[in-house]
Amino acid sequence: MAGPTTYFDPADLPALAERDPRAAALVARRIAALGPAYRLFYRDPVEFVRGDGAHLIDRDGHDWLDAYNNVPSVGHAHPRVAAAIAAQAATLTTHTRYLDEATIRYAEDLLGTLGGALGDDPNAMFTCTGSEANDLALRIAVAATGGRGVIVTEHAYHGVTTEVAAISPSLGGPESIAPWVRMVPPPRAGGDLAADVRAALDSLAAAGYAPAALVVDTIFASDGVLPDAPGLPEAVAVVRAAGGLVVADEVQPGFGRLGGDAAAPGGLWGFTRHGLRPDLVTLGKPMGNGYPVAGVLGRAEHIAAFAARGRYFNTFGGNPVAIAAAQSTLDVVRDEDLPGNARRVGARLVEALLGFDAFVDVRGAGLFIGAELDSEDAALDVVARLRERRILIATAGADNATLKIRPPLCFTDADADRLLDGLAAALPR
Amino acid sequence: MAGPTTYFDPADLPALAERDPRAAALVARRIAALGPAYRLFYRDPVEFVRGDGAHLIDRDGHDWLDAYNNVPSVGHAHPRVAAAIAAQAATLTTHTRYLDEATIRYAEDLLGTLGGALGDDPNAMFTCTGSEANDLALRIAVAATGGRGVIVTEHAYHGVTTEVAAISPSLGGPESIAPWVRMVPPPRAGGDLAADVRAALDSLAAAGYAPAALVVDTIFASDGVLPDAPGLPEAVAVVRAAGGLVVADEVQPGFGRLGGDAAAPGGLWGFTRHGLRPDLVTLGKPMGNGYPVAGVLGRAEHIAAFAARGRYFNTFGGNPVAIAAAQSTLDVVRDEDLPGNARRVGARLVEALLGFDAFVDVRGAGLFIGAELDSEDAALDVVARLRERRILIATAGADNATLKIRPPLCFTDADADRLLDGLAAALPR
Repeated sequence: MAGPTTYFDPADLPALAERDPRAAALVARRIAALGPAYRLFYRDPVEFVRGDGAHLIDRDGHDWLDAYNNVPSVGHAHPRVAAAIAAQAATLTTHTRYLDEATIRYAEDLLGTLGGALGDDPNAMFTCTGSEANDLALRIAVAATGGRGVIVTEHAYHGVTTEVAAISPSLGGPESIAPWVRMVPPPRAGGDLAADVRAALDSLAAAGYAPAALVVDTIFASDGVLPDAPGLPEAVAVVRAAGGLVVADEVQPGFGRLGGDAAAPGGLWGFTRHGLRPDLVTLGKPMGNGYPVAGVLGRAEHIAAFAARGRYFNTFGGNPVAIAAAQSTLDVVRDEDLPGNARRVGARLVEALLGFDAFVDVRGAGLFIGAELDSEDAALDVVARLRERRILIATAGADNATLKIRPPLCFTDADADRLLDGLAAALPR
Repeated sequence: MAGPTTYFDPADLPALAERDPRAAALVARRIAALGPAYRLFYRDPVEFVRGDGAHLIDRDGHDWLDAYNNVPSVGHAHPRVAAAIAAQAATLTTHTRYLDEATIRYAEDLLGTLGGALGDDPNAMFTCTGSEANDLALRIAVAATGGRGVIVTEHAYHGVTTEVAAISPSLGGPESIAPWVRMVPPPRAGGDLAADVRAALDSLAAAGYAPAALVVDTIFASDGVLPDAPGLPEAVAVVRAAGGLVVADEVQPGFGRLGGDAAAPGGLWGFTRHGLRPDLVTLGKPMGNGYPVAGVLGRAEHIAAFAARGRYFNTFGGNPVAIAAAQSTLDVVRDEDLPGNARRVGARLVEALLGFDAFVDVRGAGLFIGAELDSEDAALDVVARLRERRILIATAGADNATLKIRPPLCFTDADADRLLDGLAAALPR
C-alpha cells in the first residue's frame, strides 16, 4: 500500500478504479476538465452531497465529522444564511455604485466590532476573496507609505493573486517570493521577532526598498498554528517606527474563531489577543459562510491616501447578496454565541489532547488548535486513519507535522467526543 | 447648476440634502463607512430595491430601464438562477478539493462551447472575479513562456488586483502601468496594429523583458467599444512568433453578448468574431448572473506549465453554489437564445441609432454598442438627461465621448423603443 497522503495522486488512478470505479471515472473526467493544477483531498477522494452543522453527508448517506473546514463557520448550509442569500438573489443583485442601505448598515456593524482598534473613523472596503483583500491591503500600504517592502513569516500564506502569492512562501518556497519581500521566523519562545524584523528592514533598505507593511496572520496558521506569538507587539513597533504599516490578516482567525468575547471591544479578532492596533485588517473565508465575500478594514488616513490615487470598484464585492450573506453570518455568530462555543469546546479539546502521549505540543485558541506530532509521516498517517473513520482534518506548519483542528464554530461536545475517540484510535501509541 | 457628471461629488452633499434629505443622509453614512475610494453613480444617486429583466425598481416604486448593467446578463434576479443558488446554498457549499460531479459537468459544458479554439483538451480553472481570472492568466502566461512582458491597448481595463491594475492604463493613466507593460493604440481603420505590437515587443526586449502575453478585451470596451478590430489576427501572429501567449479577455464580451450563434462552434465568444485562436480565455461578469464566479480557460500545455510550479486553490472559486449559478446562467443563455436576442435587438438599435444626427459614429456587435458623440461633455449630458428619464447608461473610450449601450441580454423590443425614445429627447439637436 502506498504511504498516506493528503492529496490524491493522479498516478494512482488505476488503483482507484479497482477500489471505486465510479469515483475513478469522475476523477478522470475532472483531471481532463480542470487540468493538473487542481488537487483533490485524500488517496480516496470524497464526494459530499449535503452539509449540516459540522457534518457532511457523502453520496452513500454516510455522516462525516468536519474538523477541517473553516469557511462554513456557522455550520454547513446554515438555514439563516441560506435563506438570506435566497431572498436577496431573487430580489436585487447589482453593486456598490448605487445606494443600498443594507450595505452601509453592515459596514457600520462590522466596523463597530473593532473596538476602536483602527481609530475613530475606520473604513470598510469589500472584495470577493481573501486574496483580493490582501492584494488590496498591499495596494493601500504602498499608496500610504510610498514604500514597497513587505515582511512576512517564513511559511506565510496570504493568497493566490500574483502580488500576494509573491508574499506567500508556503506556496512556492522561499525562492518564489518577490525581491521586495523578506521573511522572518515565526514568533516562538526564545526567539526575538523584533530583532528579526529589524534585520529584515535593514536588508530591504540595502536593496533600496522602503517598508510598506508587515503582514501577519494573527494565528500564524500556515506556520503551524501559533497562538501566543511572543514578541509580536515589539515587532509591530519596529515596523511602525520605520514607516511601515501593519496588516493583520484575519482571513483565518477572524470572526470569533479564536474564542474571544463577541460582546467585548475587538473580541472577534485575532489581533486583540496580542494587544495590537493594526493599520489594516483583512477579512475573508468565514465572512459569508461560503458566499464569496471578503474585505479590508483600514484607518481613514490610509484609505484616503489610496483614494487620492484613484477610485476602487470591485464588480461583485459587497453586492447586495454578498451583504445579505455577510450580515446573516455575523448575526448568527453573535446570536448563537459561537465565539463562546469556540472558547468552551476548544478549551475542552486542548485539555483532552494534552492527555495523548503522541503529541509533542498542543496549542490553540478557541477552535483553532495545532496538535504537533514528531514527524510529517506521523501526522499524515493520522489524517489518513481519521479519514477511514470519516473525520476530516489536515496538517500545517513548515514541517507539516502539526494536526490542524479547525472545525465549524458550531462544533458540539458530541462532535468533540467523536473527534477525540477517533484520535484515540488513530494516534500512534 | 454644476455640470453633468457620471459620479456623485461628495462636495455636493449639502445641495443633495436640500433636494433629497433621505438620500443625503444615506450618502453621508456611506462615505463615513466605506471611505473616499468608493464612487456612486450620478449627481443624484439612485437606490434600487428590486430588479426584473432589464428593469430596476427604486424605493419609490419607479421603474428604470437598465441599458448599462452587463453582469445580470440573463436579467436581474432571474428566477431560474436565483432558485439554483437558493437550492444549493441550503444544501452544500464546500470547495473544489472534494469530488463534485456538477463542477466537472459544468467545466465540460463550458469547454465544449469553445469549438476547439483552445485545442483538443483545454482546461477550465475557476476564480471568483474577472480580476482574479486575468491575474491567474498572467501567472500562467509567465510560467508558460518564461517571459514577463505584457502588451495591452492604450485605454485597457483588465481588473483591480495589483498585477492587473498594472496592465490597466484606463484606471490610473499611462504612468500607472508596470515597467514590463507596453501599450499599443487600439485597433482602428488606417492603423497598423501588427506594427504597433512589433514596436512594443522591441521596446520590451530593449528593457530586458521577453514577452509573456498580449492581452485584449475582444470588444475593446474601455477603448470605446471597437467591434471590428482591424489587424488583430496579424498582431496575434506577431506576438506568437515572438514566443508570447494571447489572452482573450472575454469578461465583458463573452457568454453571448456580441450576438453570436449559441449553437455554432465558439459562438458565445468575442474572439470567434475575429477568427482568433487564443491561448488563454478569461471569463467573469455575466458568468453567474451576479454570483461571484469567473475563470480561465486554457490550452492544456500552458496549464501544465503552470501546474509544474505548484498547485492552485481558490477557496470560493468553483464552489458548488458558484457552479449552480454558472450552470443555470449558461442554460438560460441557451434556452432563451439570448445571443439571438442580442443579435436581433442589437441590430435594430444600431440601425435606429444611425438615424440620429448627433452621433459621429455608431458601432456594435449584439448588445454591446458604442454611439460616439463629438465630446465628453455631450456624452455626459446625455447620460444625465437619460437619468432624468430613468434610463441607465454610461460612457466609454479614452476621450469618454462614446455612449456605452450594454443592457442585460433579455432586452426586449419594447425596452429598445423606450431607450430610443429617451435618446430622441436627450440628444443634442
